[in-house]
Amino acid sequence: MALDIVPTPDALSVALTETARLVEAQLDALLPVPESAEAKLIEAMRYAVLNGGKRMRAFLVMEVAKMFSVNRTCAARVAASVEMLHAYSLVHDDLPAMDDDDLRRGQPSCHKKFDEATAILAGDALQTRAFEVLAEADTHDDAEARCELILALAAASGMRGMVGGQMIDMESEGKQLGGPEITRLQALKTGRLIQYAAEAGAILGRASAQQRHFIAAYGRELGGAFQIYDDVLDETASEADLGKTAGKDAAQGKATMVSILGLDRARAQAEKLAEQAATHLESFGDRADLLRTLARFTVTRTS
Amino acid sequence: MALDIVPTPDALSVALTETARLVEAQLDALLPVPESAEAKLIEAMRYAVLNGGKRMRAFLVMEVAKMFSVNRTCAARVAASVEMLHAYSLVHDDLPAMDDDDLRRGQPSCHKKFDEATAILAGDALQTRAFEVLAEADTHDDAEARCELILALAAASGMRGMVGGQMIDMESEGKQLGGPEITRLQALKTGRLIQYAAEAGAILGRASAQQRHFIAAYGRELGGAFQIYDDVLDETASEADLGKTAGKDAAQGKATMVSILGLDRARAQAEKLAEQAATHLESFGDRADLLRTLARFTVTRTS
Repeated sequence: MALDIVPTPDALSVALTETARLVEAQLDALLPVPESAEAKLIEAMRYAVLNGGKRMRAFLVMEVAKMFSVNRTCAARVAASVEMLHAYSLVHDDLPAMDDDDLRRGQPSCHKKFDEATAILAGDALQTRAFEVLAEADTHDDAEARCELILALAAASGMRGMVGGQMIDMESEGKQLGGPEITRLQALKTGRLIQYAAEAGAILGRASAQQRHFIAAYGRELGGAFQIYDDVLDETASEADLGKTAGKDAAQGKATMVSILGLDRARAQAEKLAEQAATHLESFGDRADLLRTLARFTVTRTS
Repeated sequence: MALDIVPTPDALSVALTETARLVEAQLDALLPVPESAEAKLIEAMRYAVLNGGKRMRAFLVMEVAKMFSVNRTCAARVAASVEMLHAYSLVHDDLPAMDDDDLRRGQPSCHKKFDEATAILAGDALQTRAFEVLAEADTHDDAEARCELILALAAASGMRGMVGGQMIDMESEGKQLGGPEITRLQALKTGRLIQYAAEAGAILGRASAQQRHFIAAYGRELGGAFQIYDDVLDETASEADLGKTAGKDAAQGKATMVSILGLDRARAQAEKLAEQAATHLESFGDRADLLRTLARFTVTRTS
């Protein structure tokens, strides 16, 4: 596909903004604040998940779902669910016993804004709500599809996915992990959920096994590119751009793809993965243009 | 029903032991330790959920399921799932930022045995696995039933249930809650999950709406009795019997049903709820005998 018919980054930026608006309206509706003693809990959940962010995972769900003509509200519900899951992981990762981070998206992290107990509980309840939304009949007519979404999210986010990756990450402080170990850590910790977000759109659309295979491959390589480029940004971007503490991994003596490959080769590796990701989209024609642009954006962003 | 044909507590004790054996075998199978860097996470999850306990929630699932002739392996999977959910809540409740408890079932609590980060992650992944097991096809042939189980568990355990209750509990330190407030707190924090366990057996068995109504009412009052009697035990039982720190609520200035009603009236209230619970079982005849015994046991136990 010639470069001149690929949508400009502006088109992506418009689409990302539109997705953010839609998914945030959905999140607002899915997390109503009750007039009861536990209101603080829901306020903390809303603070954590309505605190900005690029909404890349939500965008992946919605954009893949669109290729399969999925009802937009159903897609937005699944997008909101993955953002809740992601937000829960950030809230718990920021806790003093974990990465001990005071800043998230340029704002006090949840346990600084509220307190530690509230942050633990808000993360817990965000996870519950993420699964609950998927199980609700409004998400898909077919209960089999709803169960498939739940199984895919659990595999991506639980002990065999994101939480497993965070465990390895906690254990790796002060250890010199090699390239393959870091690649596995990052695939579990970040890659699997990004891959899930893409696959969720295909599950919603009852895509064929082959289509799902291509979408999964796209999501997997996009996730790899994303994480390596995150390591690059952690070295090169300012704290103001990142909205979180920069240079943290290096300070904690954690190996990253940058510490192993050096900045230039890490950047090149991220770009290569982003290009590979796009190759899996060929059979979808121009319906996948924004997903191609997203792959490119993933390794050129500044935050 | 005359007292002499109700099973003796011995029959209950045998059935509880049998359930514990079955559900622990199931938990063992559902949480295999991988030979990879995140093994510590799964070890902590196993430590938290295979650390003894009465398995009352598991028993409720299995015993109600039995009344509806549910396949025993399916019931044991749902029983294992609710025990994982319960274990996650205990691991997080024991954290320093929450109830700060070093002991659980007479053993070091998860963050003492491992560390805080591992305990947070183990709780997180136990929650995920609990929902995952429910969504797996082996749990029920009908995906609608699996979604119904997930929705019921989420409602019982999330922001509108257990976690909401724990939030109110954290906020109540040093406040003088009244009886209705404590009743609501306890219903959310403990009662809802006990009620869910009973209902889960009925969902598995595709019980009629009326049957489900009776089982829910039984579970609700049993949960109430359980929690009030827990307050009684917190005052009267020894630490060795409880396997956890005794007298903690009083020490933290938290109001309990005992501090409000006094010991005798609290005990009487628990007994009254246990009796009421049993009345909802009439239509099930002698198939519900062990559930009746359980209600009685709930307010006579020593730990």
